[in-house]
Amino acid sequence: MTGKRKLGRGVAIVGAGMSNFGMFPDKDSKDVFAEAYSEMLANVDKGIDPADIQAAWIGNFSNDFFVHQAHWGPIIADLAGLAPKAVTRTEGACASSTLAMRDGLMAIASGMYDIVLAGGVEEMSKCTTEEVTEGLALATSPYEGEAGYTFPGVFGALATAYFHKYGAGREDLMNITIKSHSNAPLNPKAQFKQTIADLMQAKKARAEKKGQPVPEWADEKEALWDPSFNPPVAWPMHLYDCCPISDGASCILLVAEELAKNFTDDPIYVVGFGQGSGRGLHACPSLTSFEANKNAAAEAYGTSGLTAKDIQFAEVHDCFSIAEMIHIEDLGFFEEGKAFKAVAEGETRRDGRMPINTSGGLKCKGHPVGATGTAQMFEIWKQLRGEAGERQIPGRDLYIGATQNLGGTGGTCTFTIFERR
Amino acid sequence: MTGKRKLGRGVAIVGAGMSNFGMFPDKDSKDVFAEAYSEMLANVDKGIDPADIQAAWIGNFSNDFFVHQAHWGPIIADLAGLAPKAVTRTEGACASSTLAMRDGLMAIASGMYDIVLAGGVEEMSKCTTEEVTEGLALATSPYEGEAGYTFPGVFGALATAYFHKYGAGREDLMNITIKSHSNAPLNPKAQFKQTIADLMQAKKARAEKKGQPVPEWADEKEALWDPSFNPPVAWPMHLYDCCPISDGASCILLVAEELAKNFTDDPIYVVGFGQGSGRGLHACPSLTSFEANKNAAAEAYGTSGLTAKDIQFAEVHDCFSIAEMIHIEDLGFFEEGKAFKAVAEGETRRDGRMPINTSGGLKCKGHPVGATGTAQMFEIWKQLRGEAGERQIPGRDLYIGATQNLGGTGGTCTFTIFERR
Repeated sequence: MTGKRKLGRGVAIVGAGMSNFGMFPDKDSKDVFAEAYSEMLANVDKGIDPADIQAAWIGNFSNDFFVHQAHWGPIIADLAGLAPKAVTRTEGACASSTLAMRDGLMAIASGMYDIVLAGGVEEMSKCTTEEVTEGLALATSPYEGEAGYTFPGVFGALATAYFHKYGAGREDLMNITIKSHSNAPLNPKAQFKQTIADLMQAKKARAEKKGQPVPEWADEKEALWDPSFNPPVAWPMHLYDCCPISDGASCILLVAEELAKNFTDDPIYVVGFGQGSGRGLHACPSLTSFEANKNAAAEAYGTSGLTAKDIQFAEVHDCFSIAEMIHIEDLGFFEEGKAFKAVAEGETRRDGRMPINTSGGLKCKGHPVGATGTAQMFEIWKQLRGEAGERQIPGRDLYIGATQNLGGTGGTCTFTIFERR
Repeated sequence: MTGKRKLGRGVAIVGAGMSNFGMFPDKDSKDVFAEAYSEMLANVDKGIDPADIQAAWIGNFSNDFFVHQAHWGPIIADLAGLAPKAVTRTEGACASSTLAMRDGLMAIASGMYDIVLAGGVEEMSKCTTEEVTEGLALATSPYEGEAGYTFPGVFGALATAYFHKYGAGREDLMNITIKSHSNAPLNPKAQFKQTIADLMQAKKARAEKKGQPVPEWADEKEALWDPSFNPPVAWPMHLYDCCPISDGASCILLVAEELAKNFTDDPIYVVGFGQGSGRGLHACPSLTSFEANKNAAAEAYGTSGLTAKDIQFAEVHDCFSIAEMIHIEDLGFFEEGKAFKAVAEGETRRDGRMPINTSGGLKCKGHPVGATGTAQMFEIWKQLRGEAGERQIPGRDLYIGATQNLGGTGGTCTFTIFERR
């Protein structure tokens, strides 16, 4: 899959929607999907009759486990008024909805359909934290599962390997967390909307109110070093290195390129897409890189004819802070072993050379796992069209963005490139 | 989706493999998938280097529930030596692996890939019967689940409606069961290889051995009316109306039509494919037809330019005997309300006008749910190539066969048409 593949037709996004992300005990998957779908329909500039949608693909990791309901294709078909048309569920752990987008994209490129819906949903907050941890661990490799690994442990191991190989440390991961939390207050749909400074202030206020000693921290990093503020989870992963448990949904409307202008004067074209599989800790060739990322990048750069230098900004899968570090190296945005220095210099901030996770990332925006892939695309759609509001990347003419989505221990990775023309 | 769609490229099957189906307490999903995959590789007449397979799609319903492991894409990638290439899991309940085939097919038709693997796997026998019933019920609609339905009850309701509407009865369903069991001994991979007469004989021998009264039955139907031989499950579904709990795997190799002769002089072309969604008992327009079947049939006949009259034989999804009856009407093989008479007249037997489920069907072959779709295609591949051995449809020049695969209460239905040229 190197070199540019000749697809039957180009494909464009002409609408995108996303529910609020968070813990919603009074809502179920149908409720949050309806929010995302309604917003998507409303976001098609020239309108869309839902009856014109010909098929759909929906990513869901394991509502089987979380809420004891599988077979989401027909449920979404019913909800969205698509029945009796085909709706397929895809599952690639936390990358499930990017797989939905990829299958929908190829269905259009094949000539079978012209207009398809792709999206994702997950409902996690009905479970206890222990149950969610167990459920998510269904996505580890069987060997990791048998060895007792859950994901904070897996990613802790990767972070340790990265630290050892390149001389990085916890402060380098803190830079990622601080940056994500600096974007989050600008995203009205984010689960956490506070900066680290906000959270420090809140902690101090709580202590004062309870008559406890008020902590004194010189800056954000001093707070993040303090285990009373940022307790350990699985060394070197502390609480602020880990994304939350979330409910939510997202979706996009894909159409054949030649039809795009019927729906909007400002479509976003999907110009490169790739996916790969990784073998987990028992057999992966490196602990500081995901082999699945490499295959995804080769396919996506191959289908687009673009290189890493062409990508202006990206949403990448920061389920844990170390994951963001690895991805931005794997995709060629930064050289291997050098991303942590670039991050420290602010290059991935919203006003930096290569903005990463302007949405706040999974860390702050939230991570309803099956919804994350197309929610990343929602952010790219907003940024490329100049509609990201307060979090719009400043002072840049944006035309190429990308999303990277991961499932398991890099068991599934995707990389997708979007262009505004 | 009516009228013939112009696909980018045609697609052919050049290899197919299937594990034995049955209850295998000493094997896991990887073991049975390896059996199917090895056979498929060996079945490619001119050989295939597995390194040439570019991507895969794998159907699995809910090993999440059955064996506490999700995210089967990378597990299969690792097992089949495909990593780091993309492997996607699809889920449409018991139709999961046909969805895998459809997505793989469209990926080739799009121009993205030339050679892809599609298959499915399920591991059910590690659970108790009660657990399997609960697990399968994750595929009912949420409204059916909330109302306490499990699948024998759902299909019992459909059978009751069919009886009421058309004047059919339990004997009509028995004709399907007797026919399936007459094909089963000819399928070496089937879970149950006995005719109903064989099973009656075995029951008598057991009674004799225990010194109990030996039952006297005039024929198969008298035995099937006897609840000591055929106990009720959910009226009018009795034990012999219901498929078993199974483990197993199956897969096929799909290639771009123009490459097919590089792999075999006798490829099987996928000329029509369709899928639909149904709304479950709370909202379906009919209890004697699946709306999802109608959409699937319209798409498959539309993509192929064929009609029901062109189909010479088919594998259809007989999870329960009534399902087979409904499918062969929905797909136009028989008029609505008239299939039961045609079945009684032997038209769906192996030597009849329209042979249905020469494999023994799900009832006898077994139903490891995620594996069933591509296992149906394995049977079509065998029959069309004249390689079905003792169960080969006699005295006919076969060139067009079809598979129908169902998930849930017709929540997902597929219909696929295959041609030998």
